Amino acid sequence: MSERKEVVTMAHGSGGRAMQQMIERLFLSAFDNPWLSEREDAARLSIAALSQQGDRLAFTTDSYVIDPVFFPGGNIGKLAVCGTANDLAVSGATPAYLSCGFILEEGLPLEDLQKIVNAMAQTAREAGIAIVTGDTKVVQRGAADKVFINTAGIGVIPADIHWAASRIQVGDKVIVSGTLGDHGATILNLREQLGMTLEVESDCAVLAPMIAPLRALSGVRALRDATRGGVNAILHEFSAASGFGICIDETAIPVKPAVRGICELLGLEPLNFANEGKLVVVVSAQEENAVLEILRSHPLGADAITIGEVTGQTQVCLRGALGVSRQLMLPNAEPLPRIC
Amino acid sequence: MSERKEVVTMAHGSGGRAMQQMIERLFLSAFDNPWLSEREDAARLSIAALSQQGDRLAFTTDSYVIDPVFFPGGNIGKLAVCGTANDLAVSGATPAYLSCGFILEEGLPLEDLQKIVNAMAQTAREAGIAIVTGDTKVVQRGAADKVFINTAGIGVIPADIHWAASRIQVGDKVIVSGTLGDHGATILNLREQLGMTLEVESDCAVLAPMIAPLRALSGVRALRDATRGGVNAILHEFSAASGFGICIDETAIPVKPAVRGICELLGLEPLNFANEGKLVVVVSAQEENAVLEILRSHPLGADAITIGEVTGQTQVCLRGALGVSRQLMLPNAEPLPRIC
Repeated sequence: MSERKEVVTMAHGSGGRAMQQMIERLFLSAFDNPWLSEREDAARLSIAALSQQGDRLAFTTDSYVIDPVFFPGGNIGKLAVCGTANDLAVSGATPAYLSCGFILEEGLPLEDLQKIVNAMAQTAREAGIAIVTGDTKVVQRGAADKVFINTAGIGVIPADIHWAASRIQVGDKVIVSGTLGDHGATILNLREQLGMTLEVESDCAVLAPMIAPLRALSGVRALRDATRGGVNAILHEFSAASGFGICIDETAIPVKPAVRGICELLGLEPLNFANEGKLVVVVSAQEENAVLEILRSHPLGADAITIGEVTGQTQVCLRGALGVSRQLMLPNAEPLPRIC
Repeated sequence: MSERKEVVTMAHGSGGRAMQQMIERLFLSAFDNPWLSEREDAARLSIAALSQQGDRLAFTTDSYVIDPVFFPGGNIGKLAVCGTANDLAVSGATPAYLSCGFILEEGLPLEDLQKIVNAMAQTAREAGIAIVTGDTKVVQRGAADKVFINTAGIGVIPADIHWAASRIQVGDKVIVSGTLGDHGATILNLREQLGMTLEVESDCAVLAPMIAPLRALSGVRALRDATRGGVNAILHEFSAASGFGICIDETAIPVKPAVRGICELLGLEPLNFANEGKLVVVVSAQEENAVLEILRSHPLGADAITIGEVTGQTQVCLRGALGVSRQLMLPNAEPLPRIC
């Protein structure tokens, strides 16, 4: 039973027949859409169709280098679609089109690549996003770690939506859409071989459907998906952009018991852990309940909760159970490299 | 004199303070523009402004993994702007906006990264392109080779431009904008340490200004920049998309003597060598001279020449000096991995 596994070879990245065949068999069949079928270097997108949905394009990019490539709750392909779609959605846009660039290490099993591509295709299809243009490079064994993926995304922002951290005001409420640190804890447990049977998996998900109804509210100031750097990085970003402070209630922060356990074991702070399916929303106090209601009506936002508010100070602080506040610093580096 | 070189560390990719500082000092100052200054996850681009220039967006992406990172005529940063700008321009678009995603290997000298970023900024600025959104990841030493860059680009295609390989017709002329194989020969010489003092450097350049006036001609069918896979790959792509053949005159192919020398030494075919600043244009016989005139009036197209024509056959062939034709096959892999 010596079945030989098919793997990625240098020829797959060379611009010759081997590459053409891989593109056709693997990518074109999975991502199938009219733009890709044209086989031109650039996809051509109707501006008239885009302008019917809003007055501005949102344009963003992320590279994904997560280690390990497969993890409970997803894989690097699913992540590469969710992460970029979410960056579009938090700008107020409806995600529409993605590009994808693969950097493959020679020797990667084609079976693994197929699983990754299938996850991308399925996640994009479910979210109504088309992967319309792409590129594949192969580097020799040891020059990359299995597979890196870049996605860039285009979405359309409706004319009346102007979410931005600079619009945050004193008295605004800070809401998170669910438990924090699930993705970070899952990857940490896997990678450091802690061997804990964690009842937790990555929260990797496209948040656009949950975000869309928030566009009906006038008091929403700014949204972020709390990925690398966790909620803490977002709070500091909001504070720097608005010039105001943010005070968070330590007891309000939703964390799954298993994640709390791993954090206490290792002396880590769940606010610094990456999430891949959690929103931070800043909203006027008047519309706090409206946001909570919208979020909680979506399965991904069932645990949405207000964790704090915007203050006239300039620092980010954490209010403990006894009412004592301490300044929350942005760490120089987060505990986990290659988390996304 | 033991000066310690500053290098990229894992902290630079962590979402914490170290990353924020690198983004500000290195990227924001070099790429400086109103979209980046907003510091939002996604750049916001006016659809009205885009629609004034045409009716379709062109959207494309490429990852750049070239080895070595610095080479005569450019570096990976310059290449990452030129390559994606050219993919937009050959679709008929005016390149407008780029995203950039960096994957950095821990230990990369910050001085090298600064040079790469400066080259990107300068090349983009000269071409009237804004780098409006970006992302930086760092992987541990040995998990990537120095630096990989992805750029995705958005351009606008004027309403009357419909260049596509499917529009190619029998009798059309095939024109190249200059000498072939300069980029490939330069990298081969460097990397394989052939030690030849080649009078040649990479032709890496933004071709958009040379392409723009071609939009005034009605007989232009399709354009490509002949990168990975060389002119040969483009000819096969054109043949497959149109269902016609292409016949090339061996004696017409412009190749610099130094490149010819390296090819003969190694038994390689310059038609398979990558270029990073050369166009292949297919045009009606009526407008052949108009295209040649436009190309030759630009410094990057001074050596433009007709190399062949579209035939009723279905194969790509090479006609030798004595008039004998042989079929030109697409190699399974090109001679040089990581050429771009």
